[in-house]
Amino acid sequence: MKALVFDGGTVRVADRPPPQPAPGMAIVRVARAGVCNTDLELVKGYMGFRGVLGHEFTGRVEDGPPEWKGRRVVGEINFACGQCETCRRGLGRHCPTRRVMGILGADGAFAERVAVPVANLHEVPDPVDDDEAAFVEPLAAAFEILEQVHVRPGADCTVLGDGKLGLLAAQVLHQAGARVVAVGKHEEKLAILRRRGIAVATLDAWRGEAADLVVEATGRAEGFAAAVAATRPRGTLVLKSTVAERAAHDLAPLVINEINVVGSRCGRFAPALSALKSGAVDVRSLISARRSLADAAEALEIAARPGVIKVLIEAG
Amino acid sequence: MKALVFDGGTVRVADRPPPQPAPGMAIVRVARAGVCNTDLELVKGYMGFRGVLGHEFTGRVEDGPPEWKGRRVVGEINFACGQCETCRRGLGRHCPTRRVMGILGADGAFAERVAVPVANLHEVPDPVDDDEAAFVEPLAAAFEILEQVHVRPGADCTVLGDGKLGLLAAQVLHQAGARVVAVGKHEEKLAILRRRGIAVATLDAWRGEAADLVVEATGRAEGFAAAVAATRPRGTLVLKSTVAERAAHDLAPLVINEINVVGSRCGRFAPALSALKSGAVDVRSLISARRSLADAAEALEIAARPGVIKVLIEAG
Repeated sequence: MKALVFDGGTVRVADRPPPQPAPGMAIVRVARAGVCNTDLELVKGYMGFRGVLGHEFTGRVEDGPPEWKGRRVVGEINFACGQCETCRRGLGRHCPTRRVMGILGADGAFAERVAVPVANLHEVPDPVDDDEAAFVEPLAAAFEILEQVHVRPGADCTVLGDGKLGLLAAQVLHQAGARVVAVGKHEEKLAILRRRGIAVATLDAWRGEAADLVVEATGRAEGFAAAVAATRPRGTLVLKSTVAERAAHDLAPLVINEINVVGSRCGRFAPALSALKSGAVDVRSLISARRSLADAAEALEIAARPGVIKVLIEAG
Repeated sequence: MKALVFDGGTVRVADRPPPQPAPGMAIVRVARAGVCNTDLELVKGYMGFRGVLGHEFTGRVEDGPPEWKGRRVVGEINFACGQCETCRRGLGRHCPTRRVMGILGADGAFAERVAVPVANLHEVPDPVDDDEAAFVEPLAAAFEILEQVHVRPGADCTVLGDGKLGLLAAQVLHQAGARVVAVGKHEEKLAILRRRGIAVATLDAWRGEAADLVVEATGRAEGFAAAVAATRPRGTLVLKSTVAERAAHDLAPLVINEINVVGSRCGRFAPALSALKSGAVDVRSLISARRSLADAAEALEIAARPGVIKVLIEAG
């Protein structure tokens, strides 16, 4: 089968043996996949990953338990052992021996087929089409904020960063009842939020008003200091950016202002699927470009360009 | 009156005009005061403070409202405006225009007398003597952890650092029902905790087991990374150390392990007074030395020596 493979040096579409059925696993025929910033980091060496990239996807079950065959699905990306203390506490996404699709020890979804634990599958309800379903994974990461933080009705909330995750987080917090101000560099990306009735400010125009809840989704090391400065005393700062390099940070303001920093990563898929079904979140406007699987390497190049939001790969 | 004054260059006992009565203020005749690490930082230039040092104290009201005169008191150190939005939300300790006794814009308690807002006074109950009452401020900072974090019965808790704050935090968490392991460098300091039935480990012997709750009270920049590594996924890291300098920190593990970092500073005095009254916390064992107010400069020198815990200044 065709797949986008990173060998540690180059990234290119190559022929790979298709994944084989195994107990507890399903083989999903990929219909649509999304390019994430993490993919761009992986090809720069992050995590030392080698293999098939891709962890945002939707498709149809081709092989596996009979009750799943033929169903349209998305799949959670953390493959947990299910046995350890962390898994028994319901924290499989933090299983210390987990594999992560397209990121750590497991081939990903920029391919004709991908192997997924049956326990990780979620059926996609009919009103949600393939383009939308490809957003479930990043949208779940945005909903993770609501799992971790109590967002009060009308809470002041600033979202820093108008990349993919920032645009999703702003919408998730808005539909949850927060008073969101989204701050970013790109007028045309912020316009997507403005159309949803969300207040926006370009970085130049933003006056840095402090908020009770600040989401740092800039993807840049310097975003942390800006987020700390924008968080009220006793407020909460949700840290979404994983910046690989160590950087100089002044942590004293966290203590002086008693700020609560909540590191936040992947989320459950169920709330994301619900929001797509109800239309509470607009993901369609985030699609900047689409390429076939044969041109998946080009899809990554496009995703790296300034101003581009989501690039979809059409594998089906 | 005699007072320990820092003029930006040297710290010495000097003659100062005594504080004058003013509306809403009480004049407290200081009986006992404690030297804090913050005092040592201030004479190195932290906060740019000039004036009378000292913010841990107890004494007797000498002038002020008749109902307070003659009472034994301690005083909260943040002098809030009481009018702004932060104060109205009950967060006077974070008032943006606050003065802080002996730290920011207000003379401190290493003096014969100190001026304190009446609103900040708490009466000291009789069973608590002057030596113990001098610990109310740092003990309140330890109790602040319980205000900010839900500590479940039997929660695994690691306290990093066996300085004054670490020894108090370990005791506060222990009496709240947590399963505490206190990690430090000084066998003789850890022995104070062991006598209270608290598990201890020297840094050499500690195996770095991860815990649900970790308190970083090392007072050192490198303590942060150790604390992050010792916090379980989805666990809580209480950050107590204010380290003035910027240092290189890797924040990615906070995101990947979804760690909750809770910056924690001053606390309410009431729980600290209760714990001293009931004997739930032993502060007496923390007293390493005592000096008269005339020798207060020497008290600071002693407090800076390795192995010394609390130095008290006898002003009365």
